[in-house]
Amino acid sequence: MNATIITVGEELLIGQVVDTNAAWLSNRLYWLGICVRNVITVGDKEEDIHRALKQVWPANDLTVITGGLGPTPDDRTREAVAGYFHRRLELDAALVRQFEEEYVRRGLTMPPANARMALIPKGFESLPNPAGAAPGLLYEDSSCGMLFVVPGVPDEMKAIFKTSIEPRISLHGAASTSVHRTLCTAGKSESSLAAELADLTERYRIAFLPSPGQVRVRLTTSGAKAGKNLDVLEVLIRTRIGDCVFGIESDTLEAALGTLLKKRGYTIAVAESCTGGCVLDMLTNVAGSSEYLRGGVIAYANDIKRSALGVQHKTLQRYGAVSKAVALEMAHGVRDRLDADVGLSVTGIAGPGGGTREKPVGTVWIGYVDREGAEAKLIRLGKNRRRNKTASAVLALDMVRRKLSMT
Amino acid sequence: MNATIITVGEELLIGQVVDTNAAWLSNRLYWLGICVRNVITVGDKEEDIHRALKQVWPANDLTVITGGLGPTPDDRTREAVAGYFHRRLELDAALVRQFEEEYVRRGLTMPPANARMALIPKGFESLPNPAGAAPGLLYEDSSCGMLFVVPGVPDEMKAIFKTSIEPRISLHGAASTSVHRTLCTAGKSESSLAAELADLTERYRIAFLPSPGQVRVRLTTSGAKAGKNLDVLEVLIRTRIGDCVFGIESDTLEAALGTLLKKRGYTIAVAESCTGGCVLDMLTNVAGSSEYLRGGVIAYANDIKRSALGVQHKTLQRYGAVSKAVALEMAHGVRDRLDADVGLSVTGIAGPGGGTREKPVGTVWIGYVDREGAEAKLIRLGKNRRRNKTASAVLALDMVRRKLSMT
Repeated sequence: MNATIITVGEELLIGQVVDTNAAWLSNRLYWLGICVRNVITVGDKEEDIHRALKQVWPANDLTVITGGLGPTPDDRTREAVAGYFHRRLELDAALVRQFEEEYVRRGLTMPPANARMALIPKGFESLPNPAGAAPGLLYEDSSCGMLFVVPGVPDEMKAIFKTSIEPRISLHGAASTSVHRTLCTAGKSESSLAAELADLTERYRIAFLPSPGQVRVRLTTSGAKAGKNLDVLEVLIRTRIGDCVFGIESDTLEAALGTLLKKRGYTIAVAESCTGGCVLDMLTNVAGSSEYLRGGVIAYANDIKRSALGVQHKTLQRYGAVSKAVALEMAHGVRDRLDADVGLSVTGIAGPGGGTREKPVGTVWIGYVDREGAEAKLIRLGKNRRRNKTASAVLALDMVRRKLSMT
Repeated sequence: MNATIITVGEELLIGQVVDTNAAWLSNRLYWLGICVRNVITVGDKEEDIHRALKQVWPANDLTVITGGLGPTPDDRTREAVAGYFHRRLELDAALVRQFEEEYVRRGLTMPPANARMALIPKGFESLPNPAGAAPGLLYEDSSCGMLFVVPGVPDEMKAIFKTSIEPRISLHGAASTSVHRTLCTAGKSESSLAAELADLTERYRIAFLPSPGQVRVRLTTSGAKAGKNLDVLEVLIRTRIGDCVFGIESDTLEAALGTLLKKRGYTIAVAESCTGGCVLDMLTNVAGSSEYLRGGVIAYANDIKRSALGVQHKTLQRYGAVSKAVALEMAHGVRDRLDADVGLSVTGIAGPGGGTREKPVGTVWIGYVDREGAEAKLIRLGKNRRRNKTASAVLALDMVRRKLSMT
């Protein structure tokens, strides 16, 4: 089964909003065994949507349009789809009542414009929206396939997908032709990994997907023994770069680290300077992280490194804030003061300013302390502030992961 | 001048990676006065890329392909483009030497596969890559327009765009037909804003782009007086919702807040519980934030709220960690201990667990203290952990912005 996704919105074409809906939908369809062949992004106007539909309909088994179903006048997808299939728009009175009741419940009066969202093209099925007002739409044609239309608000799109689209697709019994597996790695660059796997990349379909501090290695096989070949390939790769692999598919480093900490019964505390909260923000993205995360200190100013973490004045003077000695004192300090098993610290120069000849922008020290001892690591990154923050945070978490996996 | 962007990569079609390149390119082209009519995403295979080219070439003035120029065997864009235009691939020996020298400089030997990146389709121009190895490619046909091919690695794509693509497009003298302006707002929901501007949205082209805690309001006009009409419309809107507007276009709330703090000569310190570092991470995304940010404490565990922030045991017992009283004590504590002018705090239930009947998931208290006094604010959010973290952080920063704008 093949699919096309059409995302609608001028905000996408002027680059004001990143199209996360396309990625989410592609991923869900992929897991349902459906191969997304194209994503097409077009503007809000009816002619834009008609142009996209002309390109894909009826060539695909499945088409999903997202965006342009809201109550405001810039939302034209409903009209565009009705026009393309020469259908009249009919008002669903029960739906309008439902909208009105929700407003009453909140002590408000419904703006009349909201009723637009209850217009359904004749012959289309209306799909309930568990996360908002505008319903999804379904048009089915036994020879041309299925067309789903859903709002562009991510939560609403996702809710309709899960409750209405997914069950209908499963009914059709889709089947995938190729299978993928992704190994999530941290701590080595794309080119280092590619070099270590050079002979394998010649013989197998292996793709490298880098993000700051991390590389996802995606393996693809097809044919009758696809699953078994994938297992063999995974073993081959883990033999070479197993120390970098922290998970598979959509696993996150912070969740993998959380699992390790819980297994040990360890708690952690973090002292951040240049990452400015990024390490802790990542750690707390994991539901239940309060089980092992004590907390942390963001010591942006040097005197706070002293007062809140106990870094010595003379250490700062002699070695500077970005140094092995300060990283270690920060890790010790946060571990002691927040009473944790593991103390982690990051201090560096995120940029764009603040670099010197000896310590250029991108110089970062990571400090690690546990009951066994202390260790610090120097990393050298690039010039982009946000990228340096993220990469430093990832490499700091990866350092803890490696320490806890080893012993 | 019209454009199409083709983004290449199976990782996009299985939803493993969000296509940020398309947004970035669209935005840059938009600012150059070029209207992106379509974004098309296709897989890595040569036939996928041919299919996309067939749809757009020669119908557009400008086509940009991004992705698939790397050294690994899954990168096939070079071959696909050469094949589509029936060109031979020729090795640029000078470029290979350049690659080799870079490896030597780093004390390494170049993997032979890297030479692939120096293959240029005959008649194409090679565009230097200031951020990596693979050069961009340019094919110009006076009747069909320009085709640029750039790597998919964001930094490399951006560097080639700025140094080679932008200057060439400017030479062609592009001109836009409609003009946009975006007002960046925080603190009110999309539906509240839409209701307050209801009459204006009927008469003008206004779009609402929500993200957690923020809404960007985009105004569009066209025609001879487009610029002047835009100014008038902006004034009309600011009269109604001016208190929510913190900036225009790509302004960020954290940068707007930084400007206000610097203007006052104020420093700030932040105590975070449920946001877990997100507020501080946002603040430190601004280059130069060390001028006004003292630092912060992430007090995830209750005893750290006491030991690191001085929250009273009896306050925690009587009101619970998620309460007005604790938010205020946290704000006072972090202001005093980190010696800042402004103390900001966030404590709440990010979810998915931890909610009660009285304090359901999404209950968040924000505390604010400065020399004039203290204030706390209750917000009620949804059930999504990451969304709650981001929205809480945004609304906390917005509370500070409003306090500093007022007085």
